Amino acid sequence: MKLLRYGALGAEKPGLLDNAGLLRDLSGHVDDITGDTLDDVTLAKLRALDPADLPIVEGEQRIGACVGNIGKFLCIGLNYSDHAAETGAAIPKHPILFFKANSAIVGPYDDVVMPRGSTHTDWEVELGVVIGKEAKYVSKEDALDYVAGYCIVNDVSERHFQNNLTGQWTKGKSCDTFGPTGPWLVTRDEVGDPQNLNMTCDVNGKRMQTGTTSTMIFTVAEIIEHLSQLFTLHPGDVITTGTPPGVGMGIKPEPIYLKKGDVMDLTIEGLGHQRQNVDQDA
Amino acid sequence: MKLLRYGALGAEKPGLLDNAGLLRDLSGHVDDITGDTLDDVTLAKLRALDPADLPIVEGEQRIGACVGNIGKFLCIGLNYSDHAAETGAAIPKHPILFFKANSAIVGPYDDVVMPRGSTHTDWEVELGVVIGKEAKYVSKEDALDYVAGYCIVNDVSERHFQNNLTGQWTKGKSCDTFGPTGPWLVTRDEVGDPQNLNMTCDVNGKRMQTGTTSTMIFTVAEIIEHLSQLFTLHPGDVITTGTPPGVGMGIKPEPIYLKKGDVMDLTIEGLGHQRQNVDQDA
Repeated sequence: MKLLRYGALGAEKPGLLDNAGLLRDLSGHVDDITGDTLDDVTLAKLRALDPADLPIVEGEQRIGACVGNIGKFLCIGLNYSDHAAETGAAIPKHPILFFKANSAIVGPYDDVVMPRGSTHTDWEVELGVVIGKEAKYVSKEDALDYVAGYCIVNDVSERHFQNNLTGQWTKGKSCDTFGPTGPWLVTRDEVGDPQNLNMTCDVNGKRMQTGTTSTMIFTVAEIIEHLSQLFTLHPGDVITTGTPPGVGMGIKPEPIYLKKGDVMDLTIEGLGHQRQNVDQDA
Repeated sequence: MKLLRYGALGAEKPGLLDNAGLLRDLSGHVDDITGDTLDDVTLAKLRALDPADLPIVEGEQRIGACVGNIGKFLCIGLNYSDHAAETGAAIPKHPILFFKANSAIVGPYDDVVMPRGSTHTDWEVELGVVIGKEAKYVSKEDALDYVAGYCIVNDVSERHFQNNLTGQWTKGKSCDTFGPTGPWLVTRDEVGDPQNLNMTCDVNGKRMQTGTTSTMIFTVAEIIEHLSQLFTLHPGDVITTGTPPGVGMGIKPEPIYLKKGDVMDLTIEGLGHQRQNVDQDA
């Protein structure tokens, strides 16, 4: 099942993408796609609906982030063995955690707007994990039961803010519009093994990142186990799980960063496609 | 004006503390104390009310965090010159930013519950700054106009999680119940100069922290200026601005950490008092 949210920013409605690729209106059944609607019981009710009975949404629609009212936007850093090698960093002993501000979240086709003066903005295609059920002290064996589904996240990153403004990566990760999320949440039953998904990121039509979730250092299940020892994961929290090789910062001999007018295209197998135009605050 | 929220966790009502120390019900005027009610116009309307006309709230009441629906819970690290010296850290060039999970937020008298296995939980009395107005690219000269008010925050910190679980302080700062906030939000007109407030933290009746916001490395205005260059600060965001000397980690010859049964008392001049009992997950 592919769940999404459409309409103006801040006023999105819940929708479902049917097998023919048509957008169907779910607002007769749930108010929104948030932590309140991602439990197994509600998802089973939605799955039992015949999509053909749902109204088709006509016309061009903005697609919002596929989860509304995200509580925690948790990010795992350096989680691909091949990306860690690319950045020259050691393989971490535990998942590296930082937060992205939830005020950075936008839709998958919204513009990415670099802050005033930014010259080091970079792309990162990542597998997003959407929590469906409260998780505390969970074992990795049970961890995937707490997942509602998966989506694409572009963990857009300002490397100067991240690395040169004194400690803690959050500064480079939290700029407004730096968290495109979606286009849809694909429920876990439809994704199958989250550790076997191909992923790509193109910039201006050129393939920059090619990866697979099979090279993650810490699997989705291990990440949930680790984080849930520290604090409760709540329904509607999103964990973005790190990026494979090919970020701009790692390009030799010279890094390449985004500039106004660039276009990013991101895919993850089974989770659809994102495209953002790059703009910059004057 | 002292604004607060009372009632069961997750179902708090808005209240006002009058000059006689009586709790008055504000729910006839606003639904809650959140980013939606912290703008200057709404605050002026509340200020124009005669507290004597508001119903007195009778009986023992739980006090909640003084702001509901906090968007970003932003924390500044190592922001007191005397605390930086105590931990052996260099004076930072820019404000060190990390996030606390907003799922860590509790009321000022709620229990602080150490996670299972935690043996390095520490206290940190801090000045919390509540944003009242959207702030982007703000100068320090104008920055305090964007503040609705101030409150006490206990930035409870698990030092092992913070320092030994691989990078990024967030892990030690985000445990459930590690963000007591309140008891009330004191509006900025009543606080005056935020850089001249005395603060204390006692553990089991013994004075551990004695500080003043006058020794902050980056002032509240400078912090807002810096953060607003990176991303938008939204109404209802809370910035907690670092802690003065006297944390358990810094005690010589051996650090002292919290244990089940301990009691913390925190004060900041003009902002009231917090008290938490320490418990631990089995």
